[in-house]
Amino acid sequence: MKQSKLFTKTTKENPKDEVSRNAQLLIRAGFIDKLMAGVYTILPLGLIVMNKIENIIREEMNSVGGQEIFMPTLQPKDNWLKTQRWDSMDDLYKVKDSSGHEMALGPTHEEIVVPLMDRFIKSYKDLPFSVYQFQNKFRMEMRSKSGILRGREFVMKDLYSFHLNEKDLDEYYDLIAETYKKIFKRAGIGDVTYMTYASGGLFSKYSHEFQAVTPAGEDLIYICKNCSLAINREIIADIKACPGCGQNDYREEKSIEVGNIFKLMTRFTEPFNLKAMNEKGEPMEILMGCYGLGLGRLMGTAVEIHHDDKGIIWPESIAPFRVHLISIKQNEEALKIYNKLKNMRVEVLFDDRDDVQAGTKFADADLIGCPIRLVVSEKTLKEDSVEFKKRNESEAKLIKINEVVDILK
Amino acid sequence: MKQSKLFTKTTKENPKDEVSRNAQLLIRAGFIDKLMAGVYTILPLGLIVMNKIENIIREEMNSVGGQEIFMPTLQPKDNWLKTQRWDSMDDLYKVKDSSGHEMALGPTHEEIVVPLMDRFIKSYKDLPFSVYQFQNKFRMEMRSKSGILRGREFVMKDLYSFHLNEKDLDEYYDLIAETYKKIFKRAGIGDVTYMTYASGGLFSKYSHEFQAVTPAGEDLIYICKNCSLAINREIIADIKACPGCGQNDYREEKSIEVGNIFKLMTRFTEPFNLKAMNEKGEPMEILMGCYGLGLGRLMGTAVEIHHDDKGIIWPESIAPFRVHLISIKQNEEALKIYNKLKNMRVEVLFDDRDDVQAGTKFADADLIGCPIRLVVSEKTLKEDSVEFKKRNESEAKLIKINEVVDILK
Repeated sequence: MKQSKLFTKTTKENPKDEVSRNAQLLIRAGFIDKLMAGVYTILPLGLIVMNKIENIIREEMNSVGGQEIFMPTLQPKDNWLKTQRWDSMDDLYKVKDSSGHEMALGPTHEEIVVPLMDRFIKSYKDLPFSVYQFQNKFRMEMRSKSGILRGREFVMKDLYSFHLNEKDLDEYYDLIAETYKKIFKRAGIGDVTYMTYASGGLFSKYSHEFQAVTPAGEDLIYICKNCSLAINREIIADIKACPGCGQNDYREEKSIEVGNIFKLMTRFTEPFNLKAMNEKGEPMEILMGCYGLGLGRLMGTAVEIHHDDKGIIWPESIAPFRVHLISIKQNEEALKIYNKLKNMRVEVLFDDRDDVQAGTKFADADLIGCPIRLVVSEKTLKEDSVEFKKRNESEAKLIKINEVVDILK
Repeated sequence: MKQSKLFTKTTKENPKDEVSRNAQLLIRAGFIDKLMAGVYTILPLGLIVMNKIENIIREEMNSVGGQEIFMPTLQPKDNWLKTQRWDSMDDLYKVKDSSGHEMALGPTHEEIVVPLMDRFIKSYKDLPFSVYQFQNKFRMEMRSKSGILRGREFVMKDLYSFHLNEKDLDEYYDLIAETYKKIFKRAGIGDVTYMTYASGGLFSKYSHEFQAVTPAGEDLIYICKNCSLAINREIIADIKACPGCGQNDYREEKSIEVGNIFKLMTRFTEPFNLKAMNEKGEPMEILMGCYGLGLGRLMGTAVEIHHDDKGIIWPESIAPFRVHLISIKQNEEALKIYNKLKNMRVEVLFDDRDDVQAGTKFADADLIGCPIRLVVSEKTLKEDSVEFKKRNESEAKLIKINEVVDILK
């Protein structure tokens, strides 16, 4: 993409109403725009990152048999009354339709997915299976100081699984835990993300959160020094020994919850009376698991973890572009390299802006944070070269133009 | 995809609460599920179709320089007060946040995109440009008898363009009109879709709708018998002569509005005081156009236009799968063909269900409506063949298995 065509512009000043580093950098670099507390527009660069995150998650969800659907935001009050969450869920947005009937704006989709399945689950032969979606969620959050880490409106991947017995649910739950680890690794935050024991509520001993360690985190976790499993603040006092290894020595870290997985058991199938017939024609209980992962939160977390004073340092897998190609008054030669890279399907942001100083272009490249910077200037062209620099390294080197293709293969 | 793994099932009976043919067929075939009037879940087969429609639109929007973004659903009341639409728009959903502040659920995004651009548009050099999104819209519709043609919640592509002068807006508007024709042609409804003159409101002489002619339509249009331009019901009485050719002889048709384009002029830039500096440093008015296209409505319209008594007949470009491969008790041989087609990247739905009769499989294939049906049975295998039938033709023929690959290339 040519930067001269990109309608967004970077800004030097931090937005006054953002205290979190992720939101400051993402706004300054033109990835997102803040509409109001906890509500953001995703701009072109941000949408590329979000789509890359979405595709990583989709590949992994499909690999464990998830079938993708898209459920509505507008949800009937009756469904929420049935599960007794209409009055008990504090962060539920409620809206009235023209006839005065109340509806919820979906903060999650158990109340929709369970009655939906009543149409399709008849017998034990129909189980197990799982469905997932990428969908905007709405939660009336009070805290909104963390940029896109805690939104009132945010895109979430939510997966729901359905099982005939506990062993089957347990196995799938463990499979998803492993799949989440893969996702966070692929998205570049695997090294700092810990599977964390959390309360299972009334229906299950534990649930699990995936917590990414960063000083910007609002949560506190206790990481076992022996086996690296973690335990969250809410339940650490009740834990006698690490559920992973039995030892009892932890370090405390600030962290961001980037995902959670939960055995719902019959919490939602029971109120909707969702059952399957067994081989004898008798109705059987259906067990459920649910598995959430916020896309904006993952993007924000990646920025919290991967940045320096100058800007963002994107992991290659979710970078908006792999290469930021900068022309210093050499647009003609730079354009040839741009076209060559595009033909190789290398993702390039080409800074072809005429009216911008070299210093500003370098600063923008550092702020936007593509993994590789290539500079074409009079100086480099004298050597038939471009300057090559990785965003996460300080050293720049000259490479011959005819070698660029090989190096970026 | 293996049909035995697909969690959705077809049903023979029409849903009792749907009178429109598109919703009946889409629900029976398992493309969508109705949650409540005007609110639908998109099921796996439906999501494939919706994604194909989205990709066609995205390609065409990118080809005219549109930059993709994603704006929020939750919109501040203040923005809607500024444009004087908070009280005047009847179908606006309103919701309160925890502090009692009111917000709108976005039925459209002028109130968001215009102030957003205040951050980026400084001078005449920043214009023209356009942004678009695929986003869930919310409208408090009273009429909801038309299945997914008129939703209370529905995914729409909305494009907004920004211009320094009327000539530039006019040219871009004409370009988008041509682009819409391409989109409807690619999606298989081009032959019956007419560019239709509609009221331009206070700010512009005309706007244009794209109306697809079908007996299921809720709108009425008047198609010029000479030049095939159309005029909508609201303004036909005021039209002296066809704006396309000057003649005055029309035929009346029922139709569905599948898109609309509108010159907004300064209707929204003025209340937000969005201006650009000219070369002399003087503030200049900015003109806008907006261009809408509903994805679910396009899917529903395609079904209204392409179906018969047995089910849907998808245009190939938006079909969930190109081939429906049916095994009649020959799963082993059929699986080989399935794998061969998958390796060729042919999109195949493989009916490998063990417990389903041949007649039901054929009925399901007709209902779901993939363009090509292949049947593998004992009879066809005796001839080293499969039975090949197009959904929109009645004749079936045997083709040799080793020729299947060439025929489907």
